[in-house]
Order: sequence, then C-alpha cells, then structure tokens
Amino acid sequence: MGHIIGSLNAGELLNNELTDSLSAMERGYSPLENAIRAMDVSVCEAFSKSGALAPVTFAPGDRTLEPNHEVAEAFPNSIAASKNIILTAAETMTSKVTGKRIAVLFSGGPAAGGHNVVVGLKQILGPDNTLMGVIAGPKGLLRGNLFEITDEHVNEIRNTGGFDFLGTDRTKIEKPDDIEKVRNVCREQNLDAIVIIGGDDSNTNAALLAEKLFSDVKDDGSGVQVIGVPKTIDGDLQLGDDLPISFGFDTATKIYAEKVGNLLRDTASSLKYWHFVRLMGRSASHVTLEVALQTHPTITLISEEIRERDIPLSEIVDIIAQTIIERAKKDLNYGVILVPEGLIEFIPGFTTMIDDLNDKMAQFKDELNGKSIREQLLFMYSKLTQSHGELLESLPDSIKYMLMADRDEHGNLPVSRIETEAMLSNAVKARISELDANVKFESLNHFFGYEARCGASSLFDSSYTYNLGATAGSLILDGRTGYMASLTVLDKGARPLGIPIASLLDIEMRKGKPAKVIEKALVKLDSQAFLYLQSRRKLWAEYDFSSSPGPVQFWGPTARQMPKTVALNRGYSSLDFKF
Amino acid sequence: MGHIIGSLNAGELLNNELTDSLSAMERGYSPLENAIRAMDVSVCEAFSKSGALAPVTFAPGDRTLEPNHEVAEAFPNSIAASKNIILTAAETMTSKVTGKRIAVLFSGGPAAGGHNVVVGLKQILGPDNTLMGVIAGPKGLLRGNLFEITDEHVNEIRNTGGFDFLGTDRTKIEKPDDIEKVRNVCREQNLDAIVIIGGDDSNTNAALLAEKLFSDVKDDGSGVQVIGVPKTIDGDLQLGDDLPISFGFDTATKIYAEKVGNLLRDTASSLKYWHFVRLMGRSASHVTLEVALQTHPTITLISEEIRERDIPLSEIVDIIAQTIIERAKKDLNYGVILVPEGLIEFIPGFTTMIDDLNDKMAQFKDELNGKSIREQLLFMYSKLTQSHGELLESLPDSIKYMLMADRDEHGNLPVSRIETEAMLSNAVKARISELDANVKFESLNHFFGYEARCGASSLFDSSYTYNLGATAGSLILDGRTGYMASLTVLDKGARPLGIPIASLLDIEMRKGKPAKVIEKALVKLDSQAFLYLQSRRKLWAEYDFSSSPGPVQFWGPTARQMPKTVALNRGYSSLDFKF
Repeated sequence: MGHIIGSLNAGELLNNELTDSLSAMERGYSPLENAIRAMDVSVCEAFSKSGALAPVTFAPGDRTLEPNHEVAEAFPNSIAASKNIILTAAETMTSKVTGKRIAVLFSGGPAAGGHNVVVGLKQILGPDNTLMGVIAGPKGLLRGNLFEITDEHVNEIRNTGGFDFLGTDRTKIEKPDDIEKVRNVCREQNLDAIVIIGGDDSNTNAALLAEKLFSDVKDDGSGVQVIGVPKTIDGDLQLGDDLPISFGFDTATKIYAEKVGNLLRDTASSLKYWHFVRLMGRSASHVTLEVALQTHPTITLISEEIRERDIPLSEIVDIIAQTIIERAKKDLNYGVILVPEGLIEFIPGFTTMIDDLNDKMAQFKDELNGKSIREQLLFMYSKLTQSHGELLESLPDSIKYMLMADRDEHGNLPVSRIETEAMLSNAVKARISELDANVKFESLNHFFGYEARCGASSLFDSSYTYNLGATAGSLILDGRTGYMASLTVLDKGARPLGIPIASLLDIEMRKGKPAKVIEKALVKLDSQAFLYLQSRRKLWAEYDFSSSPGPVQFWGPTARQMPKTVALNRGYSSLDFKF
Repeated sequence: MGHIIGSLNAGELLNNELTDSLSAMERGYSPLENAIRAMDVSVCEAFSKSGALAPVTFAPGDRTLEPNHEVAEAFPNSIAASKNIILTAAETMTSKVTGKRIAVLFSGGPAAGGHNVVVGLKQILGPDNTLMGVIAGPKGLLRGNLFEITDEHVNEIRNTGGFDFLGTDRTKIEKPDDIEKVRNVCREQNLDAIVIIGGDDSNTNAALLAEKLFSDVKDDGSGVQVIGVPKTIDGDLQLGDDLPISFGFDTATKIYAEKVGNLLRDTASSLKYWHFVRLMGRSASHVTLEVALQTHPTITLISEEIRERDIPLSEIVDIIAQTIIERAKKDLNYGVILVPEGLIEFIPGFTTMIDDLNDKMAQFKDELNGKSIREQLLFMYSKLTQSHGELLESLPDSIKYMLMADRDEHGNLPVSRIETEAMLSNAVKARISELDANVKFESLNHFFGYEARCGASSLFDSSYTYNLGATAGSLILDGRTGYMASLTVLDKGARPLGIPIASLLDIEMRKGKPAKVIEKALVKLDSQAFLYLQSRRKLWAEYDFSSSPGPVQFWGPTARQMPKTVALNRGYSSLDFKF
C-alpha cells in the first residue's frame, strides 16, 4: 500500500541523462529554484555604505505617532522608550556587537519573501552572533522548539518562497501563563531577542511581548528585545510613507493579476463567459484594487467604496446586470468581475442582519419546521428588526435562499464561507432575466487564494524582505525593542526605519470585547490608486481595455516592478523599485 | 449608471508621468506584453536555409499510417492523394506561388500560442498572397465573416497569448447544408485554402472539409485546400514522434504546475492542509501527469491507470486515507493530491452505473417521492443491475448522497459537473475517521482550469506555433490538402511534417452512434513519462520531495524548456527545445 496506486510493471524506465537530471530537480531544486537561489539580492545604500554589508544605527526621525491614551497606559515601558518617534537609519554601526542570541519565527498565514527576512537577518548579524529558528510559529516558541540557523541553511533558502523553512501557525501569546512560558524559554535558551515575522495580529503580539519582556527576564535584570517584521499578502498592514506595504503583497497580487489577465484574454477569445472572481484578502480590498490596476477588468467591486457610499446589495446586482446588458447590445457579452473576499462584511447592514437571522431562526425553530423555504422567509420578515427584515426582503431570491441554508453547530451561517462570487452571479442571472430575457448569461465562478501565498518571491519581495531582515537585525544590534522594521522611499534607494509598534495600536471591538490591536489599513477612497481606478473604470466596463500582465519575471525588462497601488499612493514617478 | 459604482469625487487624481504610463499599458500593452511582442521567434532550419524565411516543399517520408477500412472508403479523395504517407519537409521552395487567398480560423477552446500560428502563416505566405482572418470560429466561416490580416495586425499579435485576435467557437461543420454554405463562401471570397486551428474534433472537421472541397468548388473545377493545426491544452492530440504534442499544452501545464508547486510550499508552511486539486483535461490525464513530473506532489491519480488496473473507487479512497494516516504518524499531515478532470469516466463501471441510476430514478419517481435519501438508496440497490447495485452500495456515504442529488431537466446527473475533488476529499474524510479517529484531516478543494488556456505563451509554445503556422503555409503553397501541420525532432532543429488527417480517423461511438473521429491519445502506462512517475511516487508520498517550478520565464536560464512528458516520451536527452 506504500505505493500510490501500486506498481504496474507495464514497461521499463530507461535510465539516462534526462531521468538523472529530473531526479536531481526534486526537493526544491527545480531549474528555476536553482537559478533564483543563486541570484544576488539588492541591498539598500544604508547597509552597503562601507563597501561590505554592515548594520546601521538608528536615530529619531521627524515623524511622531499619536497613540491612543488608553493604549499608552498599557504599554508604559515601550512608550517611554520610544516616545512614539519613528526611528530612521543613521550611520554604519562602528561598535562591534557580538555574542547575541536571536530567535526568529513566522506567524500567521505564509507569504512570499519570508525566507529572505531570515537571510537578511542572519547576514547582518554576522558570524559573531547566533540566529535560532523557531519551528512552527508561536506554538514552537512556547514549546522552546528552536535550532541554530547556519550559513548552509541560508544558501538553501535564499530567494525561495514560502514559510516552509520553519513552518508557521496562528497561536497568540497573550495569557500571563503563555508569557511566562516565553520568559522561561528565553532564559533556558539564553535569548537576547526575538524577531516575529507576521501580520497585524502578529505584530500586535510582538508589541505585547516587547512590553512584557522589557526587563527582568534574565538573572542580570536585562530584558529580551522583540522586533516585528510586516508580512501579509492582504496589504492591510501599511502606514503611508513610513510603511509603504507589507511583504508578500507584491508576489500574491502579481500571481492573481496573471490569472485574471489570462481570464480576460480567455473570455475575449471564447466570447461567451462572465467570470466572477473572488480574490483573497480578508477585510481590505487592496488586493482587488491592485489586480484591477494590473489588468483592467470589466467590473471591479471595492468593499470600502460600497460601505462608504452605502450601496445596498440590490443596487450592486443591478449595476452589474445593466452593464452586462449594455455590453450584450454591442456584441461584448463577456467579461471579468472582481469581487474582494471581504465584500459581504462591508455591505450596509448585512452582517448584523445575518446575526439577527441566526438568533431568530434558533428562537423560532419549531415554527419554521416543516415550512418550505418561501414560507420560512415570509415568516421571518416580521420577526427580524424592521431594517433587517426590509434588507432581507429586498434581496434577490437566490441570495435569500442561500441565507436560509443550514446553520452550523453553533446556529451560525458562517459569513466567510459564503461564496460571494456565486451569490452575485446567481443574483445577476435572475436580475438579467427580469430586465431583458433575451440577453444570454453564462457565468463561471472562481476563488483565487492559497496558490499565491507561497509563490516564488518576486524580485520586489525578495529585495524588500532581505532589507527588512537587515533592518530588524540592525534594530536589535542597536539595542531597540518594540519596533517594527520598515523601509521608505523605495523609488530612491530605500531607507530603513523602525516604527514603534505600541504607538500604532488602537482600541477595536474583537468578538464583542475591546482589544488593543493594530488597526487594519483599508483602501482609502481619496488615495491615488483608488482615484486612478475611478477615472478609468467607465471605459473598462464599456469596451475591452484589458491587459495581461503575465507571469512574474526574474529576468528581463519587467522584473523590477513594484505594486502599482504602492507607486501611485506614494507618488513615485515609475513602477520600478530602486535599491 | 455607466460608471461602475459611479463617481465619488472623494479626491483629485494627480496626472503625472506615472498615470500617463499606466494608461498607455491598457488594451494589451502591459510591460510584459510589449516586451514579448518585440522578441524574435526561433525558426527551424528548414525555413531559414536560404538565409531569409522561405517556404518548403514536401516529399513522402518513411512513415505510413494504416487507416480504418471503413474510414478510407468515406474519404476516397484524401486517401488517394496522400496514400496515407506522412510528408516531410524536402527543400526550400524555388517556384514562387502568388495570388493565393487563404482563410484562417480558430476552433474550439482557446490555447496559448494561437496567434503565432497566424503570424507564422502570414509571414511564410509573404506579401504576394492574401491571408484572411475568420471572425469567431467555424460559425464565422459559415457566415462569411472574414477580413484581411495585415502586417500591422501581425506586429500587434506576435507572441501574445489566446485566441482573442479572431475569437473562436465550437460549431461543427458536418451537415451537407453547412458544407454547401462553406463552398459558397469560398466562391464569394475567392478562397484557395482554409487553415483550421483546433483540437481533435476540429481536425476531424478539417479532414471532412478537405474531402468535400477536394475539387469542383470553383468555376474552373478546382477545389479548396484545407490544412489543420493541432491545438489542445489537454495534450490528447499527439502521435508519437510524428506529432510530439499539441500546442497550448506546455503553457497550460506550466501555469498549473506553478500553482501546484505554490500549494506544495504553502502546505509545507502552514502544516495542516490537504489540497485536492482537480486539473483541466477532459479525458486524458496528460496534464495531470506533466504537472506531477514538474512538482512531485504527495499523490497523483492517473485515470488511465485506474481503468487499466480496474481499481474501484473505494480502493482509491482507501489508498489516499492510508497515505494520510501514515504521514500523520510522521508529523507530515499535509500534502497535495492531483485529480484529473476526467477521472470519473475512467472508474470501472461508474458511468454506466450512473446511466442506470438516472433511468431507474425516473422510472420509480413516485416510489422515491417522500423517502429520505437513505431510504431511497436502500430502494435503488435492488432496482439497478446487480453489478451497478453492488458498486453503488460499495461507495462511501458522501459519494452515494452526491449521486442521489437532483437530476437536470433531462433526468441526468451531469458527470462533468461532479466536483470530483470534493467527492474524493469527503470520502477520504469519512474513511480516515473510520480507520483512525485521532488523525485530524483538514482539506481544501481546487479546480485549476480556465486561467491557463490563454496564458502568455511560453517560448516553447510561441516557437512551436510560429513554425506550425509556417508549416501549414508551406503545405498550402506546395498544393497539399487534408494534412495536419506538425514538427518532429524538437531537440534537434525540428523538421516540418504533414500528417494526412483522414488516415488518422477511427470509428468511435459518440452519443450512441458510430462516428469517424481522431481518437484521443491517452496516457500510455508503458510510456517513459508514466514509468518515471511510477518509479518516484512512493518517495513523493512518504516524504516531502516537492519542487516549485515557478512562473513561466521569457528570459533567463529556464526559458526554453519543453514539457517533461514530451522529452521523456520522445527519448530526448535534455528538457530544452533546440530550434
């Protein structure tokens, strides 16, 4: 049974030059992996001033953050030390720091470029300090599951994608017990610092650990430094010029854009399909906006706009249906519609209506029993609050039916499991047949997600992450704690920054309780990236303006592009990163 | 309403250098599209012997096909002319052929490289002949919807992917009426030849047209030549050394392989998911086999093997479940499982059982009414033929329930709409909980399909198609009809061939009737590509041997690779194509 669909012995495999070379490509040694592993990484000027790679010191910059007062009280050590000032790279470090032991871990969903953070960190720390890898994320830190990272490891993982070198998980280290466990691991392993590579929640966690490990961890009264590195393919961890983007966003959006571009060509070839594409990105629509700017699809929905303009679902469906009908009249009855994963939670009243529906369906379980779905709906309208009842009643039938589906064991309809793209295409189909029964409508639904989190890291992401790793290492050698590594002016050499994480935190309701967290950065409707979309989308909807950005390139004229949203929002004059 | 989610006027878009360059990238002018459009295409020696690009003449080669006797009788003109001999490129054409009018059309699903067939064709025909493009496939030919293709068109479409330059459709030209329409269009447009770019069915159609238009189309008694060009991403149009592969297969499998490689890295990073990936490819498993050789997934199902070895579904489920349990014991509870789209039709007895079930469910509609699904199943076992009843009874519950789902308006359960990957993962989940309830199992289902049919054409596909176009043009200028263009020895300069299509046809049952068609080439279990998989898959299942082939490259050391299955099956010593 070891064999998968066992041996057949139908013929003889000829062993030759080719079969030998194929076997050698296994375990991460594909021709491309070999080639990019050997490529040089761009190092920003700050780290290469002295000719060789060298860490930098930091000095207060001219930007100060204004933390929430309540947060400031909860992070007294961190706030006192940072004074809420963003640090900026000063000069090449002249004093030699040696003997430090630093642990690095991945936290949360994987993203392309993670390995190069480790590579940059290891190389800036140099041979006189020790870098330990934590296996399988925060859970591994709690268990003290660490090993020493060697130069051989670095040579193997350089420029390769994913978090597979260490693994990751989503454990949060918050409870006093867990923090005590970390203190013990720090003592046992004699750690001086921890680098946490993760998204908004993981960096929130880094801020908490920095505060709690600020001092008195070790026998001499010293603490353990904690530095965060901003990762998330969603792009919702960003802070203007001070943090232009999180890493992983560029690779993921380039992969989605390639596929959306391909679908646009496909549908302009077969001339009959409407593709509804849901794109990963839990809350914010940055991914969808970037992919739209790369490909110019027929219709792009941006969740933030729908919330801000208070556009009901029925109107969204109507706009899509009318666009399709208009195009059909011009013999352009095909296209691609982009739907951000988080859309539903931004539709006015939608999530509270579903909560209400969950409650009332549980409450009136017996009355609903035996009724048809249509009868159940009629019964429910009056049981919901007036506005929720009206919202439910206003929805297309196909969506109503979807919302009356079976609940999970807790009585909930899990919003994240609703296939928004299918919900929309069903509703659009129904609406088109109401508006103009002669218009044909064939749709295909897609979800583009997991296949882009661990793509081969784009040159932007490999370069960015290598320098983020070097920045994190420099912050440690410079004695800092509670900072997130960042880089600014990506179009002009890139300058390392340290952002005081506690100063970023705000109070947000999470599961009904106030929590101190980094607020997710949403798409701003006055941002240049959104305004660009807005200025072009009428043309894109009415005619074919699509482009196919194609697969991520590692050589050739297009290899050094950064995300379009970043270049637009930061006011850069070109798409190429310069460092 | 013209605007999509209308204007917001939340801020002002700054017009600058960057926004200008972004607008210039629309309508197929992304940086990558611009760069590859300007790239040279590799021309095989036959066409470049004289220094400049020149057509070749053909002579009988040493390979003869043996047509089915009944087919031969139905294609007297074609068989008499070709004598079933495969033509091979002879020498540079010395006589100048001028004044010919040739129409070219796409037929069936789109595939990368289609445009370069047109480019190669146009350039080999030269300025003294006229190339007409048929809009929207065979349907456009019936309507006489043609336009002249110019050098400007060629410069715009060169090396770009998809069929969007002309569009395509799936109309079959078979009925006498339709053939008469084509004859009329040929007369009206004064056509001398038609080039049909398509898959097995479209080339079957080309053979029929070649036979019917062999002579007496025009007033002088002459006919219209018809030449086919082999396209299909499924890879099931191939003929050993004489037709190593259809075009589009390389680009599509490279795109799927990139994504599967990314999932393999992703799951080795997050350490918890089993990804079940269904890969496009209607019948044959060539796509799945190629992707497996590129990525080394945990488990690969090959439909042809399952049929040949008569492996019941329950055993497939069992093998997957046991592999997962074994890996879980080694802390490797994650992986990727490849499922060919056509799998179900290859599972012994499955499709005939479903047909039987459809019939009996219609017959006993009243008896089934009001019964629970479990009761319906118990009732049905005895109504099916004994072997079908036993097969149904042997299936995992989740699959049984899926098969009892609602029928379409014709009373059928459409096999192609069964989400085989979901069916398998559900059944595997149930089986694991029976075998070892302590083993956790989290799965995610994927279908990789449409996003790869119109990807940016790989260098292999662009070069192959350009030369196929030049071969098709040469066959026309050399006065041939009823041939399919091909190239052989792709590792040694590539030599143009002409394959007599009628000689390929065989009798196959289609919708219950015998039809003369090109038989689909299935994966052979004694082929080197399959044997290679067989020799390695035990290792791939038990440990992590995955590689990430990464995105298709147009520059750099990996840009000139051909499919691994082609190189293995043809006995080439390297993966790089040489022409």
